[in-house]
Amino acid sequence: MFSNKVEHLIESLRALPGVGRKSAQRMAFHLLDRDPEGARALSRALDGALDGVKRCSQCRMFADDALCGICAASGRDRRLLCAVESPADVIAVEQATGYRGLYFVLMGHLSPLDGIGPSELGLEALERRMSGGEVEELIIATNPTVEGEATAHYLAQLAREKGVRPTRIAHGVPVGGELEYVDGGTIAHAFSGRSEVK
Amino acid sequence: MFSNKVEHLIESLRALPGVGRKSAQRMAFHLLDRDPEGARALSRALDGALDGVKRCSQCRMFADDALCGICAASGRDRRLLCAVESPADVIAVEQATGYRGLYFVLMGHLSPLDGIGPSELGLEALERRMSGGEVEELIIATNPTVEGEATAHYLAQLAREKGVRPTRIAHGVPVGGELEYVDGGTIAHAFSGRSEVK
Repeated sequence: MFSNKVEHLIESLRALPGVGRKSAQRMAFHLLDRDPEGARALSRALDGALDGVKRCSQCRMFADDALCGICAASGRDRRLLCAVESPADVIAVEQATGYRGLYFVLMGHLSPLDGIGPSELGLEALERRMSGGEVEELIIATNPTVEGEATAHYLAQLAREKGVRPTRIAHGVPVGGELEYVDGGTIAHAFSGRSEVK
Repeated sequence: MFSNKVEHLIESLRALPGVGRKSAQRMAFHLLDRDPEGARALSRALDGALDGVKRCSQCRMFADDALCGICAASGRDRRLLCAVESPADVIAVEQATGYRGLYFVLMGHLSPLDGIGPSELGLEALERRMSGGEVEELIIATNPTVEGEATAHYLAQLAREKGVRPTRIAHGVPVGGELEYVDGGTIAHAFSGRSEVK
């Protein structure tokens, strides 16, 4: 309408998840008018990440080198392995817990209808790691969705075959939540999974 | 934590308006994992816009050349000039109305406390345009905020001095809105601005 370059930028910003036409427009005008340095830095960061980011050969997480920062760190407990669906889950666990073990990032969940089977999730690599004799416990932290539960079930079986103890993170009423506002499925789960008060 | 390049990308994405840490994280993982082509296109579009986008010498809008697409178009009515606060407003007016005149983009509003006076809004250029004898009407479409109204008042005075007829877009109850849910200020404005039913 007034500038093809701006129009092209607006369209390109729509590649970002959750960004529609209006938000993209607002972002483009903000960057060009108020924050050209930020825009340039963003362009460089995108190129830097696209050219330099690899997958960790041990856990499939994003990494700058062959191993990610967590797998390369000394002082982490190599007997514990936590399987999660995404890199965001690693960050959530790291920030919320004192967990000092390692991770395995599936980058998704089993979903046969979408053609995502064990090999797409890199489960051969997970099998190899569990066969090494170092891992003692596999903490399964996939999402409590239908696909996440199916994946958890599959992973637990795999762990048992390799002599590794599978555990599942607890599901129930969120801490700080009010029973009144928690959905029925969660309450049912919390009831059937109740534990003895000691 | 696991990759400095990804961390840097997440931080850079926060330059976008309305994007916090969690959204930036989601965007970075999405781009790297699902849409590297989109990420590359975004980086190129950012560079293209930063290097190539100028300001239209007539209306201050973003432009690829000395004149923006609207000012350069033949067949627009050069007797009408519409003053708006931002490029997004130009797009909104173009999409919603059949307006065929030209624009003047203030890129803000008068705000003495923030050091934004007439020269920051390029009002000398607007004065020059109105002195040319071509412009007959200045349609003032600044936002109905305190600053927007003050700016409108100033622009109207300027227009009168130059022998140009100033008009203000109508403010009142939004079309399709229910009176019950419209804020008091708007209803008061709509009442005092009522017009004869013909």
